[in-house]
Amino acid sequence: VLATGAAGSTQPGQGAAFSLILGIGDDAAVVRAPDGRVVATSDMLIEGTHFRREWSAARDIGHKAAARNLADIAAMGALPTALLVCFAGPGETSVDWVLDLARGIAEECATAGAAVAGGDTSYAQAIMVSATALGDLAGRDPVTRSGARPGDVIAVAGSLGAAAAGLALLAAGPSAGPLPADVRAELIGAHRRPKPPYPAGAQAAALGATSMIDVSDGLVADLGHLAAASGVRMEVASRRLAAEPLCPVTSLRAAAEALGRTGWRDWPASGGDDHALAATFRRAVVLPERWAVIGEVTDGGGVVIDGSPWTAGTAEASGGWEHFRS
Amino acid sequence: VLATGAAGSTQPGQGAAFSLILGIGDDAAVVRAPDGRVVATSDMLIEGTHFRREWSAARDIGHKAAARNLADIAAMGALPTALLVCFAGPGETSVDWVLDLARGIAEECATAGAAVAGGDTSYAQAIMVSATALGDLAGRDPVTRSGARPGDVIAVAGSLGAAAAGLALLAAGPSAGPLPADVRAELIGAHRRPKPPYPAGAQAAALGATSMIDVSDGLVADLGHLAAASGVRMEVASRRLAAEPLCPVTSLRAAAEALGRTGWRDWPASGGDDHALAATFRRAVVLPERWAVIGEVTDGGGVVIDGSPWTAGTAEASGGWEHFRS
Repeated sequence: VLATGAAGSTQPGQGAAFSLILGIGDDAAVVRAPDGRVVATSDMLIEGTHFRREWSAARDIGHKAAARNLADIAAMGALPTALLVCFAGPGETSVDWVLDLARGIAEECATAGAAVAGGDTSYAQAIMVSATALGDLAGRDPVTRSGARPGDVIAVAGSLGAAAAGLALLAAGPSAGPLPADVRAELIGAHRRPKPPYPAGAQAAALGATSMIDVSDGLVADLGHLAAASGVRMEVASRRLAAEPLCPVTSLRAAAEALGRTGWRDWPASGGDDHALAATFRRAVVLPERWAVIGEVTDGGGVVIDGSPWTAGTAEASGGWEHFRS
Repeated sequence: VLATGAAGSTQPGQGAAFSLILGIGDDAAVVRAPDGRVVATSDMLIEGTHFRREWSAARDIGHKAAARNLADIAAMGALPTALLVCFAGPGETSVDWVLDLARGIAEECATAGAAVAGGDTSYAQAIMVSATALGDLAGRDPVTRSGARPGDVIAVAGSLGAAAAGLALLAAGPSAGPLPADVRAELIGAHRRPKPPYPAGAQAAALGATSMIDVSDGLVADLGHLAAASGVRMEVASRRLAAEPLCPVTSLRAAAEALGRTGWRDWPASGGDDHALAATFRRAVVLPERWAVIGEVTDGGGVVIDGSPWTAGTAEASGGWEHFRS
């Protein structure tokens, strides 16, 4: 007999084996939700739209499909508990390819502490992976997008810019100039397998983060979502954003040179897919080292970098902050 | 401030408004899980594989995408609480089509008592809807596939056969013979919008159902899943299976005649997509009227109808029970 999990009687964050009461093989899975609520999010990876099989191995795609969803759980301040995955692909997809995909999904879930709890497989002309992640708030309120207040600091955990640079290198193919192999591997690896800072989400919640978001559309776009939901302005300082270790400046500079780009600052500001976490905190909070402060919340609206309004993707075209430093 | 839902302090089954603590618009939703566990299941509907736009309207597809998942929650003995939906389609898909899809999803969720809690939209060459349903066990153990025991009775709630007949009519198109309009509408409607008996799932759990499954692969195939998981044989009596109101015999007979088929009994036995619930109960349980007893569990393995082994889809070809009565 499966015991009912009474709220408060269990410790969250005990890992996948703890989360899963009933796994794959029945009509549905049963996952522990210790505090009486469950955090849930879904999204898709579609061949041609989100990935190309010639640029990412099946295992990478599995990692990314899981990471995208698990990072959204962390961005609520929750601990990932489980992932359900739907896979569809052409009949000629090899079994090895699908097994590698499943291995990538399982590895990423293990990293995040979540169990693979179920899913579905089907036929489709293009490969499609959709996933739903579940998480536990461990008794805390969810950290939404709407709680940032003037006077808060803006901080980021994880890394910014490498995934976008890696994608640019893949897109350039042989037309890119020479680049040290380790730099190339670092940047392309960041595109193929983002590394969301999962534990930073619950950590931020415990520190009283006032708002938080998974950076997937690009930092400026996602700070824009916080600004809009909270009714505030986000003021970012470029010298803090474009700084190691948050941003791999040396590698990005080398990649920009190899690609013949005039600058590299667009990558940390507007590149998505690194899956960093951006959050706001009261100024008095002493932040752990993994949270890099990049600016502050003020009255107003939108996102500014070094005092100038900034729209993602236009840095080079508009003569924005890209031109002030290099 | 959003209060933590303490297990036991809340009443499940209070509907969608109760279930949803935080809805669409943030990185993830927060859904109440009153008893400290959450039931979760995912599956997909893909154009060309699961539906055709010329046979089903967007609203129907929305109903079906939701129903497939919500029925799996009911099949665990749980109350549906929330649904997350991922939609992908070609760029030329009209906004009206997508809004109708969303309307169908919302209507089906309302029927089941679940909230639409989130999702994702993207581009793909074919239309694809994947969904994840969540549910609450209300303090009871999940009803799995593995608890059927010799001596139990087999019972079905819902309806069997109409959806398969409706699909056959759509596939035949103008080549089908005349059929009363109301019969045609009944059968095609059952294919387009299955009506899972959602409350019967939690009812079965409360009655101590020993095993349960959502009938989606066809009754015999799905009873076969119960038989395999439980290590028992499922013995079905055709006179109980092929009987009103469980099976719309008169309508199926008329459709078979219109289609020039030699029989109609294959539809209730092997047609999927009606999303009835099949369950086993101890013989002493007094079943409510909505649960129609169709047979009994015995020692052995597999599924037999009127004492003969039966494989889904072979009734007409193999001279099975289809030939004994008509």
